[in-house]
Amino acid sequence: MTRQQLIDQIFSKGTYLCVGLDTDPEKLPEHLKGRPDAVFEFNKAIIDATLAYCVAYKINTAFYEAQGLKGWDAMERTVRYIPDTHFRIADAKRGDIGNTSTQYAKAFFEAMPFDAITVAPYMGADSVLPFLEYENKWTILLGLTSNSGARDFELLDCSRSQDVLVDGVHTQPTEHGKLFEFVLRKGNEWGSAGNLMFVVGATQADAFARIRELTPDHFYLVPGVGAQGGSLKDISEQALNKDCGLLVNASRAIIYASEKEDFAQEAGAIAQQYAYEMKGYLAALQR
Amino acid sequence: MTRQQLIDQIFSKGTYLCVGLDTDPEKLPEHLKGRPDAVFEFNKAIIDATLAYCVAYKINTAFYEAQGLKGWDAMERTVRYIPDTHFRIADAKRGDIGNTSTQYAKAFFEAMPFDAITVAPYMGADSVLPFLEYENKWTILLGLTSNSGARDFELLDCSRSQDVLVDGVHTQPTEHGKLFEFVLRKGNEWGSAGNLMFVVGATQADAFARIRELTPDHFYLVPGVGAQGGSLKDISEQALNKDCGLLVNASRAIIYASEKEDFAQEAGAIAQQYAYEMKGYLAALQR
Repeated sequence: MTRQQLIDQIFSKGTYLCVGLDTDPEKLPEHLKGRPDAVFEFNKAIIDATLAYCVAYKINTAFYEAQGLKGWDAMERTVRYIPDTHFRIADAKRGDIGNTSTQYAKAFFEAMPFDAITVAPYMGADSVLPFLEYENKWTILLGLTSNSGARDFELLDCSRSQDVLVDGVHTQPTEHGKLFEFVLRKGNEWGSAGNLMFVVGATQADAFARIRELTPDHFYLVPGVGAQGGSLKDISEQALNKDCGLLVNASRAIIYASEKEDFAQEAGAIAQQYAYEMKGYLAALQR
Repeated sequence: MTRQQLIDQIFSKGTYLCVGLDTDPEKLPEHLKGRPDAVFEFNKAIIDATLAYCVAYKINTAFYEAQGLKGWDAMERTVRYIPDTHFRIADAKRGDIGNTSTQYAKAFFEAMPFDAITVAPYMGADSVLPFLEYENKWTILLGLTSNSGARDFELLDCSRSQDVLVDGVHTQPTEHGKLFEFVLRKGNEWGSAGNLMFVVGATQADAFARIRELTPDHFYLVPGVGAQGGSLKDISEQALNKDCGLLVNASRAIIYASEKEDFAQEAGAIAQQYAYEMKGYLAALQR
């Protein structure tokens, strides 16, 4: 999916909601539990019920891998079931040396029809670039995440001095910033607003202004609304840009809205509420 | 596997070699290519031929995921084929918010019988701790990796000031170091030398002395020997401790030693050479 196609979807439907399919077999409604195909059946019903209110689905690979082969099968079938009008994200947090990242890119962009994959930046350029080589596919680099552990490294004060030759004179300008700011800057060098997004947690509303300053045109994938406590209003007010520039994800708040047979209907209702609120924020944008 | 069991294996066999099963279906010997079970057959032959010369196997999950469902199946069968005398590492570079890392831990420690998983530290404490909750299982945290991208973030100069109250007076001591040094220190807090290792690339020989200083008792998983150019001699001289403290991995240099029908025999011969060299370094240790 291209950037323009994504933007068109967002403004024609009036929503920037991403539904997170973190499907845990232990949390399925009673009437589905134990069925051989329970996870896929659950996802299919959730997708059918929420399709009108979202522009993206995010599959959290961990929940599928935890079920072994059967889980991987359910993941493959789920991503193939999502229509290609919707942006399909593998929330996989992958990243390894170049030749290995190439294999991960193959897994998610070739063996499965994902539009995007989340990537961990720790190992640097050659761990990220192989994902960016695919046309019309997206890399979503971890920036500032929603969890408490974000404080441990992402918010460290960092600096780097580089030898630069200006008019025959060596100087060593020093760049300062939090670790996540270095990640945003490097991401900016590696990719463009047309093939790279950043993960920015909804619980990090204080940092959004600074993040927008560093990456004015990029889309952010924003988890942390709902179960993790982030506010859709705060994020939208601080981080929307003229092209929207946000995909706000809700997982547990939507897919586990009800434990009963009406789970899909309730999921649809919650997704509709998010979409309704989003429509208001989009309408207020100057375009 | 406990730390003592691993040490006993190392000294009784005289080797700290880890064989990396980065099995790429496109690089299989001609006579295996196209067989329905080619990857598993290849791995089985490699394992049989190298078992005597190594104490660990490292399965690089990317190469299996790239083959979809069939690949995941080959991975599961491969890890089950490795005898439990050997340390079984999932080189998966996982890490996500707490409830998701718990699912990854389930995938590799429950659904499959891995002893260890490699984990990316970027997201901090709650992304790592769920892996450490498993008894006799290991977390192998990325420290300083072997790739060129290590320069982008891992080697950044970092600092953190913390408010500390000493005798009623607030002070703000500042901790300095490279990002990977912060990771080593935090890793030290989160786990012990009995359940946590670090990935340190073989190409980072210059940094090994400093790394040993920070983490004297820990084991390091050292990739980068062979195809990536690291030297077994340099690493061993600088980083062995009295309990060995190293697992040195070679992947391509062993598994692709020959493209012909004798591939397993040649793999065994290369593994034997590594083991022979290692035996010498182990013998020189003061125990």
